[in-house]
Amino acid sequence: MKPIWIEGVSLNENPTNILIENKHIAGIGLDVPMPAGAIRIAGKDKAVFPTFANMHTHAAMNLFRGYANDLPLMTWLNDWIWPKEKNLDDDTVYWGTRLACTEMIKSGTTAYSDMYFHIPAAAKAASELGIRSTLGINAFGDAEELTEKYIESILAMLEPLSELVSIAIAPHAVYTVSEKGLRRCAKLSRKYGLLYHIHMSETESEVVNCVKEHGCRPYELLERLGVMEMTEGHFSGAHSLYVDENEIAIIGRYRATVTHNPCSNLKLGSGHYFHYVELRDAGANVTLGTDGCSSSNNLDMIEAAKIMSYLQKGIRRDPTVLAAEELLDVATSNGFKTLGIDAGKIAVGKSADLMLVDLNNLAFVPNNNTLANLLYAAHGDAVDTVVCNGHILMQQRHISSEAETIAEARRATARLMR
Amino acid sequence: MKPIWIEGVSLNENPTNILIENKHIAGIGLDVPMPAGAIRIAGKDKAVFPTFANMHTHAAMNLFRGYANDLPLMTWLNDWIWPKEKNLDDDTVYWGTRLACTEMIKSGTTAYSDMYFHIPAAAKAASELGIRSTLGINAFGDAEELTEKYIESILAMLEPLSELVSIAIAPHAVYTVSEKGLRRCAKLSRKYGLLYHIHMSETESEVVNCVKEHGCRPYELLERLGVMEMTEGHFSGAHSLYVDENEIAIIGRYRATVTHNPCSNLKLGSGHYFHYVELRDAGANVTLGTDGCSSSNNLDMIEAAKIMSYLQKGIRRDPTVLAAEELLDVATSNGFKTLGIDAGKIAVGKSADLMLVDLNNLAFVPNNNTLANLLYAAHGDAVDTVVCNGHILMQQRHISSEAETIAEARRATARLMR
Repeated sequence: MKPIWIEGVSLNENPTNILIENKHIAGIGLDVPMPAGAIRIAGKDKAVFPTFANMHTHAAMNLFRGYANDLPLMTWLNDWIWPKEKNLDDDTVYWGTRLACTEMIKSGTTAYSDMYFHIPAAAKAASELGIRSTLGINAFGDAEELTEKYIESILAMLEPLSELVSIAIAPHAVYTVSEKGLRRCAKLSRKYGLLYHIHMSETESEVVNCVKEHGCRPYELLERLGVMEMTEGHFSGAHSLYVDENEIAIIGRYRATVTHNPCSNLKLGSGHYFHYVELRDAGANVTLGTDGCSSSNNLDMIEAAKIMSYLQKGIRRDPTVLAAEELLDVATSNGFKTLGIDAGKIAVGKSADLMLVDLNNLAFVPNNNTLANLLYAAHGDAVDTVVCNGHILMQQRHISSEAETIAEARRATARLMR
Repeated sequence: MKPIWIEGVSLNENPTNILIENKHIAGIGLDVPMPAGAIRIAGKDKAVFPTFANMHTHAAMNLFRGYANDLPLMTWLNDWIWPKEKNLDDDTVYWGTRLACTEMIKSGTTAYSDMYFHIPAAAKAASELGIRSTLGINAFGDAEELTEKYIESILAMLEPLSELVSIAIAPHAVYTVSEKGLRRCAKLSRKYGLLYHIHMSETESEVVNCVKEHGCRPYELLERLGVMEMTEGHFSGAHSLYVDENEIAIIGRYRATVTHNPCSNLKLGSGHYFHYVELRDAGANVTLGTDGCSSSNNLDMIEAAKIMSYLQKGIRRDPTVLAAEELLDVATSNGFKTLGIDAGKIAVGKSADLMLVDLNNLAFVPNNNTLANLLYAAHGDAVDTVVCNGHILMQQRHISSEAETIAEARRATARLMR
């Protein structure tokens, strides 16, 4: 594995060289020389930033992009999404995931936390693209299909693939998984040290129904079942839009991760008020996601970050909330932390997950503040170069497999929609 | 002026040819042949849409992009924006406007309604870029500088420039212009048939102060002063975020235009609840704007449209609100209507203001629904070709003056920030 030497790139508004060796950032400074045999990347007119961690998505659903919009939730699911999901197979999931990974790389994401079906096909696609993926194995009901034997077989299947692909235990939600199933998943999460990735309180009606059925709210249920304790350090609650004061305290007490998906919550009409400040102050690890492309319609983490920050400022009538530096952490290091990866900062010793953005992109003209321009003015197309775990995944916006992925994803979509 | 013939482009999901002659769309259909001497544009792997009308901006403020963020409103104005605005001159406004026009063209906008200073410099920049501009002459206090003689001198100055550049009367707001000034501006608007472009009810405190000072809310004040009647057909109220039931009725009664600027309202912490449905149902002409780049940070109308629609769905918990077809009208034809331009639809006889988007951009892969992909998945970078009033302003994302504009805008910014 050759070292990478980035020459004269802008870091925090100052030029520097950056050396990447053995998958890590090994040197930062204008005096860091190019080692013999290194790959040289010109950093002129570019700025370096950490890459994003997309903490909640359903990657293969990229094939559903634009398929059904502006519909009531149950119409959308019953009449549009579910009938077509019956056509899913290894081939469609493989190409859908390849398309999603391509889109993520092109917009600066090098890690994602997924939840879908046909795990081996998704793992193959992600590992080929060189991106970090944590593939949640969806469980429903009593989750009886999630046996230790099954999990060990999946782990064995991943072994020869990229070290960057791992799995998570993903009970779908408290309204689709039984108490027994929720606990079963938590035990497996603890036994194998795997992330417990679950949809939590995305809509208000889920919470109302939980109270009816279980006599308490969703996070209260998980605490009562011992799930929060068993999964401490491995819990990731997607959405968590409708949480009350007591639930915020529970989330904070277990230092749990919650993932806000602002574009999805808005577009599906789920709601707009995410308790960012309260969750952060209680001790939650707040991260950011796009959700799948059938909910909102792209995987651009810059857009998701911008909308998250703008929404917090707007609903609280306070422009100082979730300022750019903090927003960058939410979209990068907070997510990597949940995934157990020491990335999300441009600093010596960190994993080499970084991107170069093009300062001649109009979003950076003029460049009064590079970070503000990245998060508030740019979109994913400003990303020029992406490095993940010390490997170059994209340079000058070129990914060698892109044309094949586009052609095959179109073909797979035609099969899915037949 | 040569005809333009676009071959085999996707329109409403079907391939067609489009002929542009004498600034208008002259033919649509696969049987429309290429006239001798026409400019031929290949439409393969492209879809055609109307271009956007950005109905509220301060174009030259592009030089402030990223300059001050995440600050309380009055700190932002007093300590950051206003001290630097004192450095504005013809040169900075000229290059700031050129930069803004370049950014607008690159993201599919061919008309904008502006409000700023140094009108002749802005007019020169906009006319050179070939974009439609309506330049609001800002007025404050009693607006006594706005004499008939002055307006006629500006109109005479515009005469030799592009036919696409015009002016508007732009009293700044009810809290910075006196009752006398507001009326004076309305009379001039009526006399010269010019748009009356004013900031209205952007923040709640403006409304509270208006009630204190005038005994009524801002739109009630304008009605009482006779402004709404005098400007009927020419009124454009930017923001209009804080309007009550009676004001919505007033706006509807005069068929007035209101411009929502969702990104700006959110980022500045002004608020999030725009009364779209109520205004539309009352008869208002609702249009869309980005505001200037110092408020939110880019001029991308696709992003503004997406956020407007997502926000309406989210705050009303109804995903069916402001569906894609209606959203496109808000961002295109509704704005053109206010500007007196018969554009915003791809139809024979309409002004030739249209764009081609690149269907190989990942936002359109797969292409289950081209319009949904444009508004919900894409960003401005998907725009490949832009035609305004029958002239090609951009092809394959190339604008010949772009490199010079970037270099000079950087130089002008350095002077502004000195």
